[in-house]
Amino acid sequence: MNKGRLEAFSDAVTAIIITIMVLELKVPHDTNFEALRPLVPVFLSYVLSFIYLAIYWNNHHHLFQAVQRVNGHVLWANLHLLFWLSLFPFVRVWAGENLSATVPVACYGFVLFCGAISYFILTRTLIAYHGKDSTLAVALGSDFKGKVSVITYAVAILLAFVAPWLACLLYAAVAILWLIPDRRIEKALTS
Amino acid sequence: MNKGRLEAFSDAVTAIIITIMVLELKVPHDTNFEALRPLVPVFLSYVLSFIYLAIYWNNHHHLFQAVQRVNGHVLWANLHLLFWLSLFPFVRVWAGENLSATVPVACYGFVLFCGAISYFILTRTLIAYHGKDSTLAVALGSDFKGKVSVITYAVAILLAFVAPWLACLLYAAVAILWLIPDRRIEKALTS
Amino acid sequence: MNKGRLEAFSDAVTAIIITIMVLELKVPHDTNFEALRPLVPVFLSYVLSFIYLAIYWNNHHHLFQAVQRVNGHVLWANLHLLFWLSLFPFVRVWAGENLSATVPVACYGFVLFCGAISYFILTRTLIAYHGKDSTLAVALGSDFKGKVSVITYAVAILLAFVAPWLACLLYAAVAILWLIPDRRIEKALTS
Amino acid sequence: MNKGRLEAFSDAVTAIIITIMVLELKVPHDTNFEALRPLVPVFLSYVLSFIYLAIYWNNHHHLFQAVQRVNGHVLWANLHLLFWLSLFPFVRVWAGENLSATVPVACYGFVLFCGAISYFILTRTLIAYHGKDSTLAVALGSDFKGKVSVITYAVAILLAFVAPWLACLLYAAVAILWLIPDRRIEKALTS
Repeated sequence: MNKGRLEAFSDAVTAIIITIMVLELKVPHDTNFEALRPLVPVFLSYVLSFIYLAIYWNNHHHLFQAVQRVNGHVLWANLHLLFWLSLFPFVRVWAGENLSATVPVACYGFVLFCGAISYFILTRTLIAYHGKDSTLAVALGSDFKGKVSVITYAVAILLAFVAPWLACLLYAAVAILWLIPDRRIEKALTS
Repeated sequence: MNKGRLEAFSDAVTAIIITIMVLELKVPHDTNFEALRPLVPVFLSYVLSFIYLAIYWNNHHHLFQAVQRVNGHVLWANLHLLFWLSLFPFVRVWAGENLSATVPVACYGFVLFCGAISYFILTRTLIAYHGKDSTLAVALGSDFKGKVSVITYAVAILLAFVAPWLACLLYAAVAILWLIPDRRIEKALTS
Repeated sequence: MNKGRLEAFSDAVTAIIITIMVLELKVPHDTNFEALRPLVPVFLSYVLSFIYLAIYWNNHHHLFQAVQRVNGHVLWANLHLLFWLSLFPFVRVWAGENLSATVPVACYGFVLFCGAISYFILTRTLIAYHGKDSTLAVALGSDFKGKVSVITYAVAILLAFVAPWLACLLYAAVAILWLIPDRRIEKALTS
Repeated sequence: MNKGRLEAFSDAVTAIIITIMVLELKVPHDTNFEALRPLVPVFLSYVLSFIYLAIYWNNHHHLFQAVQRVNGHVLWANLHLLFWLSLFPFVRVWAGENLSATVPVACYGFVLFCGAISYFILTRTLIAYHGKDSTLAVALGSDFKGKVSVITYAVAILLAFVAPWLACLLYAAVAILWLIPDRRIEKALTS
C-alpha cells in the first residue's frame, strides 16, 4: 500500500488539533491590556503545545520521506500516535489553567510520555517492515533524542508531585531539544 | 473519474469527526484525581468511538486500495457512509453520559447499525462498477465480518431495552472483532 | 497552475462545514425518546444541509474533472463560492430552529441563492479560461438545472414572507432536482 | 524533500481557521431583521478576515507554484506563518466586537503585522534555498506590496491608540491592495 493517505490523514488530524487549541483562548469581555493578563498562562501553554505538535508533524514528515510503503501494522501504529496527540488540547487547557497544580501538570506529562512512546513504536513498526538495513533504519540510528525525551518525561511526571513548575520547565526543555534541527533523515536521504 | 478526491474528502471528514469528539472531554474545574472520575465514562466512550472511526478509516483505506476508478453512484454511497459517521459524536456523547439508559445506548447502536449498512452498500456499489470478477470482489469475498457486525448491532439494539450495559459490551466486542487484522485485501493485492 | 491545491482546499473547507454542522445537534439532558423530539427540526435541517453540501461537493468534483488548469481568477471565484458555503451552518441553525419564521427562512434562501450564483460565476470563469469549445463548455451546456435553481431560490425567498414552510419545501425540491444524477460531465468525458 | 505535505498541511490549517471563524457568528434568539443588527460588525470582521486568509492562501498557492523542493528551515518558516494565522480567529472576534476600542484593534493589527513579517521570512527562506537567480527570486522581485503592508500595519497599530476606526480602514485598505491580482509569479512561470 502507498503512504499517501496515511500522510494526508495525519496532516488533517494534526491540523485540526493545532487549530482547535486556539478556540480555548476565550475572547475577554474587557478591552484593555489588563483583560489579556489572565490569558497569559493559557497563551503560553498554547505556544508550547503548538511547538510540540509542530515538532511531531515535522518529524512525521521527515520520517515518511524515508518510507516507501505501509502495511496494516503501520496504519494502526500511526493511529495510536494520533490518539495521544488528540488528547493534547484537553491536557493542555487543564494544565494551562493550573500551572502550579500537580495532577493537571502530571497528566500533561503523561500524554507527552505516551505520545513519545507511540512515536517510538511507529518507528519500530516501520523498521520491522522495511528491514534493518533500510535507509530508514540507518537514518534513525540509535534515536538518542527519542530516548532522552521519554526519560525526561518520566522524571518530569514524578517532579510534578514535588514542584509542578519544574516539570513544566522540563517539558519546555524537551521541546527546545527537538527544535534544534534533526538532520539525520535529510542527511541519509541525500547521501 | 479518479478516486483521489473521494479519498481526500473522506480523510478530512473522518479526521474532523475524530478530533471534535475530544472537544466533549470538558476540562474539569478541580485539579485532583477526583475531578477526573466523572470523565471516565465519557473518556471510555471516546476511546471506543476513536477505535470505531479508526477501523472505518482503515477499512476504507484498504477498500480503495483495490479500487481503480469511481463514478457518481460511488460518490453518493460514500457520502451516505460519511453521513452516518458524522452522527457518531452526537450519539457517543449522549450514550457516554448515560451508559445505563436505554434510549441513548439504543441510538448509539442504531447509528453503528446504519454505518455498517452504508459501508456494505458502498462495497456493493463498488463491486457493481468493477465487476464480479474484479480483484475487489475477490478480496471482499463473502464479507463474513460485515454480516456478523450488522446482526450483532441489531441484537444489541434490542438488548439495550433490557440491559444497556450488555449492549455496550456487544459494541465493544464488534470493535475487537475488527481490530483483528483483516488481510483479505492485502492478500488479494499481493497475490 | 495545476488544480490540485484548489481541490484539496475546497475539500477541506467543505468537510469542515459539513462536520461542524453536527455540533449544533445539542446532546439532550434527558434520556428518553421525548428528549429527541425538540431536535427533530434541527436534525431535518441538518440532513437537508448535508445533502446540499454533498451536492455542491459532488458537482465541484465533476466540474474539476473536466478542468485541466486554473488561474488567479478561478482561485478567487472558487473562494467566493466557499465563502457562501461557509455561511450554511449559521443560516441552517437559525432557520432550523425557526422553520415557520420569515426572516431566518428567507436568509437561508438568500445564502442558497448566493451559493448558486457563485457556483455559476465559477463555471463561467472556468469556461472563459478554457475556451467556448472546451470539453468543459460542451459538458456544461446550457446549465438548465443551475438556472432553474437560481429562479426557484428567488421565488422561495419571496414566498418566505407569505408562507415560510412553502419556501422550505421549495429548498428541498431543488435538492431533489440535483440528487437526480447529472451525467453531462461524465458523458462528455467518456465520449 | 517534496513540497506536497507542506501544501496539504497549510491548506488544512487555513481551511479550519477560515471555517471556525464562522462559528463565532452566534445564531440570534429572535427571528426578525432587528436580531441581525448586532451581528453586523462581527459579520463585517468575518468578511474582512475571510478575505485576509483567502489572500494568504492565494499568495501561498502562487508562491509554492514556483517552489520545487523544501527543507527543514522552510517547514519551520511555514509553521511560523501558520502560528500567526491561527491567532486570527481570536483577535478577529475581540476586535470585531469592539471596533472602537484601542487594545483589541491594535492586537488585530499586531497579528496582521506578525503574519506579514512571517510571510516575508518564508519567502526569504525559500529564496535562500533556491538561490538568488531562481524563478522564485525573480518572480518575487522587490516585494513592493509586502513592504508596503508591513509599514501600513505598523502605522495602523499606532493609529489605533488615537482612532481605532481609522486603523480598521487601513487594514481593509491593505486587503484591497492585495485583492488587485498579483501577476508576478504567474508571469514569471509562463515566460
